[in-house]
Amino acid sequence: MAKSVTVSIDAMGGDHGPSVVVAGCSRALEFHPQLQFILHGDARAIKTELEKYPKLASVVTIEHTDLSISMDDKPSQALRKGRGKSSMWRSIDSVKQGKADFCVSAGNTGALMAMSKFCLRMMEGVDRPVIAAIWPSIRGESIVLDVGASVGADGQQLATMGVLGAAMARALLPIQQPSVGLLNIGEEEVKGQDNVQEAARLLREWNPTGMRYHGFVEGDDIGKGTSDVVVTEGFAGNIALKTAEGTAKQIGQYLRDAMGSSLLSKLGAFLASGAFRHLRQKLDPRRSNGGVFLGLNGLVIKSHGGTDATGFAFAIEIGVDMAANDLMRRIQADVGHISGLGDDDDGAEDASDSKN
Amino acid sequence: MAKSVTVSIDAMGGDHGPSVVVAGCSRALEFHPQLQFILHGDARAIKTELEKYPKLASVVTIEHTDLSISMDDKPSQALRKGRGKSSMWRSIDSVKQGKADFCVSAGNTGALMAMSKFCLRMMEGVDRPVIAAIWPSIRGESIVLDVGASVGADGQQLATMGVLGAAMARALLPIQQPSVGLLNIGEEEVKGQDNVQEAARLLREWNPTGMRYHGFVEGDDIGKGTSDVVVTEGFAGNIALKTAEGTAKQIGQYLRDAMGSSLLSKLGAFLASGAFRHLRQKLDPRRSNGGVFLGLNGLVIKSHGGTDATGFAFAIEIGVDMAANDLMRRIQADVGHISGLGDDDDGAEDASDSKN
Repeated sequence: MAKSVTVSIDAMGGDHGPSVVVAGCSRALEFHPQLQFILHGDARAIKTELEKYPKLASVVTIEHTDLSISMDDKPSQALRKGRGKSSMWRSIDSVKQGKADFCVSAGNTGALMAMSKFCLRMMEGVDRPVIAAIWPSIRGESIVLDVGASVGADGQQLATMGVLGAAMARALLPIQQPSVGLLNIGEEEVKGQDNVQEAARLLREWNPTGMRYHGFVEGDDIGKGTSDVVVTEGFAGNIALKTAEGTAKQIGQYLRDAMGSSLLSKLGAFLASGAFRHLRQKLDPRRSNGGVFLGLNGLVIKSHGGTDATGFAFAIEIGVDMAANDLMRRIQADVGHISGLGDDDDGAEDASDSKN
Repeated sequence: MAKSVTVSIDAMGGDHGPSVVVAGCSRALEFHPQLQFILHGDARAIKTELEKYPKLASVVTIEHTDLSISMDDKPSQALRKGRGKSSMWRSIDSVKQGKADFCVSAGNTGALMAMSKFCLRMMEGVDRPVIAAIWPSIRGESIVLDVGASVGADGQQLATMGVLGAAMARALLPIQQPSVGLLNIGEEEVKGQDNVQEAARLLREWNPTGMRYHGFVEGDDIGKGTSDVVVTEGFAGNIALKTAEGTAKQIGQYLRDAMGSSLLSKLGAFLASGAFRHLRQKLDPRRSNGGVFLGLNGLVIKSHGGTDATGFAFAIEIGVDMAANDLMRRIQADVGHISGLGDDDDGAEDASDSKN
């Protein structure tokens, strides 16, 4: 039997609140019967939803909070009003207290990041937290980071992302020695990407165990799956992610228009409906729902605010896989190893030991 | 009859050289009988190809050069060895000399940009040249700039791109008052995008005629066609463009796999083959081939190096539309207006008049 995993949940997060969140937990439980849940939020609203899922209700602890963070609270606002007492804060705090293996919230990204930093603090050896996304590719799946937290990341921060992303790939994909590519643009003598050049130098110099530095990749390499991990600064990464989502929707629209354009194409689409169902599944954004916050002393997963129960369950699933593979300890060991490289070797070992 | 337009062509550029370039010119001539061509490159190789296209041959002037720039010459190398005497340089120089309305090269982007800057010089009031791409969207087509030349562009440079892109949209799409969006990421309090904030402030302050500032857009807005023009710094823009290309290929692959997965789906695909043909056309990257260099004293169009005759003809077509709509004069007037805003009004008018 798989070892029990406890998930802390912000039951009030997202566009739909407890109705979707509780349904999502129930769905995750179907696939992972070893799960236990701590649901933070309005106890009455949560109980009402739980009545629909008696099996889930038996593995849930409810922690009541009066306060929830809204989708358009600014991070600083959210922190001021919600610190210590909001469902979002409390769900993160359960991870800090060691009561939960990870937490999931569909609440607003900025607030969740601000609270996570404040509550869990940065991991030693990491400057800035980042958000990693699981990106479907022709070859399977890749990890792309950062997709929005580290605007203007410098070379050292980019190189550290490589280490974080590789640990996540080893836990999730799982691959023994994931390849790590640095997102760059083709031009050779272009100025202004000093951070990317510096990151390349550092990754070569550090030569971290548990990953293989692949070199530069370009935007079209993400979909090809050229490297298992793609590292980029948060602004470009967020734009890449959203642009890919937009392109997928656009092509979906073209496809629907084309298939509805004549009787013959409608008949063809009907005959091929099994194939289209399969395609829809492959492109289903719910299947890559879940941004993973890396670089903190604890695991926080951000679900898309507008997702449904299936999407929320996928976000939980990411955490289950990462907890099962002891991601946090892997990352702490890897980062400890890297950040000790500047000191003497003993220092590096000490740093990594003190984390375990 | 449409007024005659002369195109200067780097016949040696691209992966395939004169064979594709000359065939592309012939194809462009079919649609635009008013075209005249100056072909720069190895006279013997060009003549051999021209024998296949007698109609084209009658509107071509050949300017022989011994030297051509290779696809992997670095920009500085290319400039050193090719300045004054390579087919690439000479094709740009024909624009400078007023012999041609615009030039097209499928040669290497970095070299073409370096030579274009050196030969044509920056337009007054513009700091850095940019590359604009035509991006298909659900609503039609948008202009996205910059897709690779202006890594690290500052606020002023981004705002100027808005003006350049709007002029191009008015000439090409054509729309009287194009909307201009600034590409940004969702987070409100994220640091590091000061350039985007500054650009927003400047566009509001300048309030340029001939465009409407739309506000911020995100990556998925490009495919939706939320704004007619999307402005971004070169690194993120190049990554967005390549990521969209990669995503389109990836989905195409999924679609082919799905349609080939069973007898029924194959039959369905056969019946819907007309619809699929239409879809393929919509997604054909050749139809958006052609990066337009803006901000220089002359019009240079970069064709994709690996394209075929149809793709090369599309790149020529962009130039034809822009020349027909007097793009360069529009841009000079718009930029003159903007860059004159710091001075008194008369100064602005003088600056714009002196360009005409």
